[in-house]
Amino acid sequence: ESGSRLSMESPAGRTPAPRALPYYVAFSQLLGLTVVAVTGAWLGAYRGGIAWESALQFNVHPLCMIIGLVFLQGDALLVYRVFRNEAKRTTKILHGLLHVLAFVIALVGLVAVFDYHRKKGIADLYSLHSWCGILVFVLFLAQWLVGLGFFLFPGASFSLRSRYRPQHVFFGAAIFLLSVGTALLGLKEALLFQLGTKYSAFESEGILANVLGLLLVAFGAVVLYILTRADWKRPLQAEEQALSMDFKTLTEGDSPSSQ
Amino acid sequence: ESGSRLSMESPAGRTPAPRALPYYVAFSQLLGLTVVAVTGAWLGAYRGGIAWESALQFNVHPLCMIIGLVFLQGDALLVYRVFRNEAKRTTKILHGLLHVLAFVIALVGLVAVFDYHRKKGIADLYSLHSWCGILVFVLFLAQWLVGLGFFLFPGASFSLRSRYRPQHVFFGAAIFLLSVGTALLGLKEALLFQLGTKYSAFESEGILANVLGLLLVAFGAVVLYILTRADWKRPLQAEEQALSMDFKTLTEGDSPSSQ
Repeated sequence: ESGSRLSMESPAGRTPAPRALPYYVAFSQLLGLTVVAVTGAWLGAYRGGIAWESALQFNVHPLCMIIGLVFLQGDALLVYRVFRNEAKRTTKILHGLLHVLAFVIALVGLVAVFDYHRKKGIADLYSLHSWCGILVFVLFLAQWLVGLGFFLFPGASFSLRSRYRPQHVFFGAAIFLLSVGTALLGLKEALLFQLGTKYSAFESEGILANVLGLLLVAFGAVVLYILTRADWKRPLQAEEQALSMDFKTLTEGDSPSSQ
Repeated sequence: ESGSRLSMESPAGRTPAPRALPYYVAFSQLLGLTVVAVTGAWLGAYRGGIAWESALQFNVHPLCMIIGLVFLQGDALLVYRVFRNEAKRTTKILHGLLHVLAFVIALVGLVAVFDYHRKKGIADLYSLHSWCGILVFVLFLAQWLVGLGFFLFPGASFSLRSRYRPQHVFFGAAIFLLSVGTALLGLKEALLFQLGTKYSAFESEGILANVLGLLLVAFGAVVLYILTRADWKRPLQAEEQALSMDFKTLTEGDSPSSQ
């Protein structure tokens, strides 16, 4: 017990993953896939399924948003916990690519709803759901571009990266949570437009959609838990450790032992 | 610059608050009060105001929930950042009391909506908003009781408290965020019930409520930022520091220097 704690805290080399982490990650994936499956089941059973060239085009929107901005964005945040011992650069590239994939899928979902509105003569961007959605999109893109500039290109200094990293982590979690909240608002909107007063009669579609809402909340909560648990943070690799030591020495006012 | 960093990290005694923290706290309070004011303005200007003995009883619900579960709950989480140098026990009691106040106000809001439903013959607990709301209530109560047992009564050992503290912090933030999300769902529900298709005509009530929604998101984000920023965490007091040192010594396998 005390021994495993010690080895977890050892600074360099391959460290074993915390014992409970894989179970939480597996649970998050089970929840995320269930969210996608229940969204598909809801659209299939109560909304006529999915197609691009018909009134069913609207249904592309919720499915793409759930897959891109909830499931894939959530998983993109978890790569640093899952791939604990891969080279940092490989993990970063996976993190960036998962966000690209999430963005492309979400873009399809966004085009679907604007195209549907245009064909049906429905106004755009009047609802709180749409305002939050646009906010998510703008923040997501800005975060991705700034992240790319700081972490993947070699230009930014170590000290600059160290200062920006916590901001990047905070905004990443905030954008993910806002995505989950925006999905809940959209689900609510779709329910109230379609069901109206039948919602209060406990129609089966209403119950299914409420369950989907709670599953979304649970997925968001589990991803946030894995992400924020202090002793599950990615261990420093040997080369980062060396840099970090020098950095610490510098800020503590002693002369650095080596550069 | 380097000197102030050093003094912030010094273990014991009164440490100066991080320079930017007061501005963020002031901004959070400005946002929180604006949220409450805009909620009041919305209910006053578009919903006929507030009363207990009429159809206006419903309006008690959103106002109480916003004051209790959003503004006061948010502030209750911030007390450890604001009162950095007060005795830990005093801060704990304030934290607990603010939650009691938040709970009582939220309870009035809950009674208001159930009473309104009963008088009008409307079904209870059919919507995603209500499901999330009940979840918030149950988690809030459980968290408060477990927190009281662990931190205010002297029974729990130091080691037990140290293990539970991060869980308490995580669930506190999660319950607060779920409260904000539930408020957004309720706002959306109130808009769609009342405005219907007029919502898409950019009615002024819709715009005001959308702005209120974004203000709620901003308040949640700023509180979360203040709460999670690592270098704004409450410094350890002298007596905690001593205990923590012993604890560290114990877990590192050496014999403790003193008990």
